Parts: sequence; structure tokens; C-alpha cells
Amino acid sequence: MGEERLRLSTLVFTVAITVLSHSSQPLASKHAPRFLGKFAAAPNSSQPPQFHYETRYFQQRLDHFSFSDLPTFPQRYLISTEHWVGPQRLGPIFFYCGNEGDIEWFAQNTGFVWEIAPRFGAMVVFPEHRYYGESVPYGSAEEAYKNATTLSYLTAEQALADFSVLVTHLKQNFSAKDCPVVLFGGSYGGMLAAWMRLKYPHIAVGALASSAPILQFEDIVPAQTFYDIVSNNFKRESITCFNYIKQSWNEIASIGQTSNGLTHLAETFNLCQKLKKTVDLYDWLESAYSYLAMVNYPYPSEFLMTLPGHPIREVCRRIDEGPAGISILERIYEGVNVYYNYTGEAKCFELDDDPHGMSGWNWQACTEMVMPMSSSQESSMFPPYEYNYTSFQGECLKNFGVKPRPKWITTEFGGHDIHDTLKKFGSNIIFSNGLLDPWSGGSVLQSISENVVSLVTEEGAHHIDLRPSTQDDPDWLVELRETEIKLIESWISDYHQKNKAMFDM
Amino acid sequence: MGEERLRLSTLVFTVAITVLSHSSQPLASKHAPRFLGKFAAAPNSSQPPQFHYETRYFQQRLDHFSFSDLPTFPQRYLISTEHWVGPQRLGPIFFYCGNEGDIEWFAQNTGFVWEIAPRFGAMVVFPEHRYYGESVPYGSAEEAYKNATTLSYLTAEQALADFSVLVTHLKQNFSAKDCPVVLFGGSYGGMLAAWMRLKYPHIAVGALASSAPILQFEDIVPAQTFYDIVSNNFKRESITCFNYIKQSWNEIASIGQTSNGLTHLAETFNLCQKLKKTVDLYDWLESAYSYLAMVNYPYPSEFLMTLPGHPIREVCRRIDEGPAGISILERIYEGVNVYYNYTGEAKCFELDDDPHGMSGWNWQACTEMVMPMSSSQESSMFPPYEYNYTSFQGECLKNFGVKPRPKWITTEFGGHDIHDTLKKFGSNIIFSNGLLDPWSGGSVLQSISENVVSLVTEEGAHHIDLRPSTQDDPDWLVELRETEIKLIESWISDYHQKNKAMFDM
Repeated sequence: MGEERLRLSTLVFTVAITVLSHSSQPLASKHAPRFLGKFAAAPNSSQPPQFHYETRYFQQRLDHFSFSDLPTFPQRYLISTEHWVGPQRLGPIFFYCGNEGDIEWFAQNTGFVWEIAPRFGAMVVFPEHRYYGESVPYGSAEEAYKNATTLSYLTAEQALADFSVLVTHLKQNFSAKDCPVVLFGGSYGGMLAAWMRLKYPHIAVGALASSAPILQFEDIVPAQTFYDIVSNNFKRESITCFNYIKQSWNEIASIGQTSNGLTHLAETFNLCQKLKKTVDLYDWLESAYSYLAMVNYPYPSEFLMTLPGHPIREVCRRIDEGPAGISILERIYEGVNVYYNYTGEAKCFELDDDPHGMSGWNWQACTEMVMPMSSSQESSMFPPYEYNYTSFQGECLKNFGVKPRPKWITTEFGGHDIHDTLKKFGSNIIFSNGLLDPWSGGSVLQSISENVVSLVTEEGAHHIDLRPSTQDDPDWLVELRETEIKLIESWISDYHQKNKAMFDM
Repeated sequence: MGEERLRLSTLVFTVAITVLSHSSQPLASKHAPRFLGKFAAAPNSSQPPQFHYETRYFQQRLDHFSFSDLPTFPQRYLISTEHWVGPQRLGPIFFYCGNEGDIEWFAQNTGFVWEIAPRFGAMVVFPEHRYYGESVPYGSAEEAYKNATTLSYLTAEQALADFSVLVTHLKQNFSAKDCPVVLFGGSYGGMLAAWMRLKYPHIAVGALASSAPILQFEDIVPAQTFYDIVSNNFKRESITCFNYIKQSWNEIASIGQTSNGLTHLAETFNLCQKLKKTVDLYDWLESAYSYLAMVNYPYPSEFLMTLPGHPIREVCRRIDEGPAGISILERIYEGVNVYYNYTGEAKCFELDDDPHGMSGWNWQACTEMVMPMSSSQESSMFPPYEYNYTSFQGECLKNFGVKPRPKWITTEFGGHDIHDTLKKFGSNIIFSNGLLDPWSGGSVLQSISENVVSLVTEEGAHHIDLRPSTQDDPDWLVELRETEIKLIESWISDYHQKNKAMFDM
């Protein structure tokens, strides 16, 4: 099972973060399957946008770090000056570092920035990350994702340079040279916000980096962290639920090896098509558990799927409460229905049959964003798996024709010594994390200095602080956001004082 | 004269810094004339190296910031572990940021690093800058300099990434993960050292950036600064000398317009070939004055040419002391003989006839390193010239087929706000400058904080502190170097204390 299991485990990680990003680029070519049509609800385009903005485009160089004669590409950005108090009053610019997906979807799901903008008299800008949404080079997503050559400029450093060039352009355009810029970002976008604060300190006065796993590289944190946290999300609800899931893998494997086993499994899990191999089912289940941990919010949400509040509690309730005599796999089926079919609209379930097609995040994971992930026999509820770089590299070569550079991110941005780097060179960064979020394990969970602050909430999930506020927000979440607002206010006020001091000179 | 004058003024700057770099890459193709064979002495290869090192090569990616499938290239580096006390004792690594030329030549002329290494028990590494010396991609300098496409990866950011990757490799190779790295650099190399400290703070503990004009961009400093400082070098020696030079340009122009004028000028200046146009003579003279200011050292030197101590004093003595009745141009000829023929070996002088051929620094000046330079009618002794970006861009398009990005350096590294950036994000940087050096005008001349220190010497010229010590070193130079050594010691001692504290935890 070695080879197949490896493929699966690689997949689980990449799918996890892809779905997380909810990329909705129209990549319907055979190289670019729509992961999200399968594993998560598509962005609801019929719903009118909650927040008001203009959509603009800025021509960016494809390669900022060479002078190759490459075509430029249009970077889409959403902008609102509705509440901006303008350059004379040094109105701030709130700049969200777009991540691996359609920027409109991130804008919709980052209500925090929109909600606090009036209080700050701030302009709001949501630039899209290159190679996602509409911001694709070579004229179309199909061309941009054609092969390793066209994809080669999809890197974090290029994205940071895009942001810096765009900020510089906007400041000039709005005569806003002296207006302070505040960066925001969640997940990969949070990593970009934190790195941008380190690499381009002259561009912005501070960064709120929510759920930003900048330590999830090499051996900085244990490889099993991610799946351990997912597992603990289930264990804290119910140890029997955790154990049922942990037992289910062998059950699936045993049945899968019998003569009619795959058919039986397809029936048990109500699959629309034939099951070709058990790992596809593993994949489908593992993904559900991982996403559930990420969006384990205390209130009903539609971030990835339509889900109840505390969705893992509901999953475990259904797994645990099946009638006596029900099989383990029937329990599991009841449980994952919470994730895949809470609305009850699905007639049957499609498993993705081409999970290795070209997609933006899979490319990034196979080049720079090499994040080792294992699952532990002892502490996790997942099938045990030990990360193996050599096999990972082989998969990337096979799928993308590209060799990963697993040590590049720490060379470029630091890593092993990140605490020291942040202490000496960082300032005005908030790392916010919820401990239910599996990505919190690779994040900065301790305050580094007076200015580099870690805000940790026990009950938080993936960048919950950036989400629009709801009437069901628990007190700790309201307080967390208030703390963030106060810190951002202090950055801006420090900036104004310094600026005033300079004018008074 | 508009077009031609422009060409010249562009040339003066680029030649100035090219000669400064003393690049000796064997670029004998028609695209790559050997500037230095004309305007400066070639590196004396018959002289045995003063310092001992091994020469090694490291395969670098041509583009660190994309995953394009480009060939790697061998980066040459000189290394000495002779005095290194090794990883157990956390022996430091002294890392010189190679600049725009053959690294052996920089190693020879950076005696300071070699001389202090034993005192620190330090390893010494001199990596060559990509596209210079032997460190050329595509197999040969001729191929590398073929066109804008092959040259396109010659950028400062790529060079910094080369250095960071090499440091990481060396640390791993020598099991020296915890050994502190100290960066050194002079001129463009000093800019790289300072920028590397800002962009890669996790890679090194500090940087000595000597004569590093990181502010010579856009309008951060007045465009006339460089030539004003050159002029002041002459004025301080003799106002009559300054005036003779200032008058000479019109004299040349007038004679050049007469029927036999160009022949007459060629005779007056003892040129080997016919003079085609007066601007070629302007160029030759302007270059001499600029280089003389850079190497206006208080002792005899052979940095660019064989020169006496205080060479400008000697130039002005000869210009001023001509017998009564001697013409201005005969005086000028006597003067520039100090620069071009102090040894008396030259029979006649060659003017460069293809100054716009491909050369590394000219490419860099036409892409990222866009440094506006004017000469003022009032304060300089040079022909008045006002920098015009549009014309500059036109020349770059014509000569290299490339469009400069004049705002990129300040977007990438900061500029207008560099004091603030250095104050908040910089630490352990020494900016050393001598005020005779024309590049000092674009450098950091005020200490920014306790850790970002500016050391200014009134009588210093271009990165004199990095040169090998001599018996003629004036007291201020000896003291300057002692101050630098103490600061470097404090960086390393701080690092050791922090490291010890971590081990004790």
C-alpha cells in the first residue's frame, strides 16, 4: 500500500488547504479539475455582495526579479474609498493580502476589515493573488496553468512584490504617500502579511496575520502537529467518536480487499460512482475531518460548506448515537453527512477522480510551500503515515515536472530562528490563532515582544477573527477583535505622532 | 549638442562606476569592449596574491524567484578557513558581498577583512557576484552577455539570494549552523551588504557597508551631488585649478568647431588615434576627474591606476604650475597625465570608441540601478548637464533593448523613508564614508540608532577602510578601523551571549 498511501497523504494536505482557500478559478480543463465542486460548496454567486467596492485592474510584471521580456498580467483588486478620510487627514489604507483563490470570495469572508474601516476612516483594498481568480497571466487560466513553464512565476515572493508595487502605485494615484498602510491576511494570506512586514517594512505600518502557519516548514514543528490537532478536535467532543474513526480505516481496508468490497463500500457511503480504490474513500473522509476542524466555528457558517455551529460536536453526536447494532462504517457515514450534506440536498456523493491535476496551491505546495505532514499511530485518529520527502519530490516531478525547493522558504524568510528574527526585526505584527485550527500548530503562539504579539483563543478555529461579526459571536471573539482594533489603533497613532514630529521639525 | 551631450553624461556615470569596479571579465566580443584596458590599469595578474584562499564553485539557480527551468551557473567563491576556530567555538564567518567585477580583484583590495580575520578566529569567504568574473551563466561571458534575455537575471535581488543560499550551504557543509556571519561590502557591494542585512536579517549578525550609496536613487539626494563632490575635491586643493578645468570645456568646444580643431585637440592630448568628436575627449577627461576623486587616498595606491598619494593635489599642482604663456588645454593635459600616465609608460592615449557595448554594470544601470546625475552650472567644474529620464530611457532601449525601472529599487528596498526603516528594522550596520568620495553624497551620513552607525571621515575616499593597511595610514584611518573592529566585536559578543543564554535555558 506504500505508493498509494503516499499519494493519498500528499493529497490530503494539498486538498485540505486548497479547499480552505476555496479557489473558484474557472479551471475546467483536464489539467485543472474543480476540487471545490466536489469537496466544498462553490461560492454562492447568486447572493448579492455584502460589501461595496469597485473592481479595478493593475498591470503587473510577471517577474519582478528579472528583466525578462515577459507579458504583464492584470492584477484584479477590489477597492472602496467610501469611508476613507483622504490623504490630508492621513486616512489609513487597509490592504488585505489576497491568498490562493478568488479575491471576491475572500472579501466576502473577511468582514472584519470592512466592518472596522469606517471606525478608522480607512480605504479598503483587496488585491487578488497572481494566478488565482481573474489575475492570471497569459490571457487565460488555461494558458497560465498549461505547464511548469507558464506556472513558474506563481511564487510567494512574486506575490509580495505585486503587493508592494500596487501599494506604491495606489499611494501615488491617491496622493497618499504619507497614509499608513495596514496589512491583513488569513491562512496563506496571513503568512504573506507577516512576511511582507518583514521583507517590506517600509511599505506598511503593521500586519494582522491570522492563522498564518509560517513555521510549518522543514522540522521547525513536528510533522504530526496538523493531524494531531484535527484529532484532538474530535477527542475533546467524544473519545468514542475518536475511536470509531480511528478504527474505521482498517474496517474499510478489510472490506475493500473482499471480492465485492468496493461495491459494498460505495453503497455504504452512498457514492454516485463506483469506488476504484479504497484510498479514494480514505481521502474523502480525511478531507472532511480536516476541513471540519478548520471551520469548527461556534456558530452556523457557510465558509466551506453549510454547517451547524460546533460542527464536530454534531458529527460526533451522529457517530456516537447510532442505534445499537449499527456498523462502524454506517456510523462514519452518518457523521460525514454533517459535512457533505448538512442541507440534505445531495442525492449521492462524487469522489474526485483526478486530484493531481494542475491547481494553484498544488503547484505552490510542490515548489516552495513544502510542509511536511505525518499522522501518528499513537496520537492521531488518521491512518498512520510518515512523511517522506523523496517520495514527495517524486510525486511533484511526476505531476508538475518540477522539483520542490524544500529549504527555500526558510532561506528567504527565516524559520528555525524566526523568534529571534521577529524579536529583532519585526514590529507591529499580530499573530492570531485559534487552538481548534489545525494550522495553529505551525503558527506563532507566543508573543515575541511588545510589538509582535500572539493572540491565542482556545475555542477559535481558522481565522475566525477575520470573519464578519455575527449575533452569535461568543464573548472571547468580541474581545479578541477589540484587542486587535486597539493594537491597530496604536500602530496608526504611533505613526501619526512620528509623522507629526517630522512636520514639526 | 543635446543628444551627444546626453550620451556622454550617461556614459560618464556608468564608466565611472564600471572602472570603480574594475571588472576584468574577459568580454572581448564587440558587444563587450574592455573599458578597463582603456581607462584604468588591468589587474596585475603577474603579482602573486597577497592573501591565501581556496577557489571553489557552487551551483546556483539562475532565477531564485521563479521555477523556470533554467540552467544553473557556477558561482565562484574564495574561501579561507586558515584562522577559523571552527563550529564548536562558534567561529565567525566573514562574508564579503562581491560586487560588479572579478572577485579576486576585490579580495586583493579588501585587505581589511583578511587582516582582522585572525583576531576573530574567522573564516573568510569572498563570493563572486553573478555575471562577473568566472561566475557567468550559459557557459561563457559571451553567451551570458549576448542580449537582454540572457542578461535579464543580472539583478541585485538575485545576487542577494545567491549570497543567502551560499551562506546556508556553507553553514550546513561546515556544521556551522550557529556560527555568526558578518557581512562586508564596499561601493555597490556595500549596498548589497546593507540591503542584505535588511532583507535577510536571519542570515547574518551585522554588516559593514563602506561607501554604499543606497540613497542615490530618484530624488532622495540632489542629482548634482556626485559631481559637486568631485569638483570640491579640486576646489579644496586650488581654486585656480578648479577654474582652469571649468574653463577648459568651452575651450575644447571652440577648438573642436574650427577646421583643424579635432586634429589639434588630438595632438594637444597626445591621442593615439584621430579624435572623432569632442565629447569623446570630454568623456575621457571627466572620467579621470571622477576616478581621481574616488581614489583620492592619502598614500600612493594602485587601485585603479598607479597614483601618488593625494593625487588631486598633484594634478592641480601640475595644472597650476605650468610656465607663463602655456594654454589652458596644455595645463589640463599636464594634469590628467597624473591619472593616465603617472608611471610615464604610456606613449599615447587611446579613447574608448565603443563605450556603450554590453557590460555588466551598464546593464544594471539601465535596469535597476537608475541613479540620476546632473552637473550644476554654478557649483561644479563639469560641463553643465541636467539629468533627463526620458532620454536616459531612450538610450537604454537603444543600447540594451531594455526599459529601466527607476522606482523599483526604492519599492524593493525602501529609500525616501530609509532612515525610518533603518531605525525600526535595521541593526548592526555600519555605514562608513569618506567625504572626499563622490559616492558619499548618496550614502547614509548620520547615525540612525545605537546599532545603525554612520562613521564619517573628512579625509577619506572610496571605501578606504576596506583597503589593506599600509605604513602610511593616517591616524584617523587607523582609528576608524579600530572603531569598526570594536563594533563587529560587540555584534559577535552580543550574539554569543544570546546563544549562551539559549543553551543555558
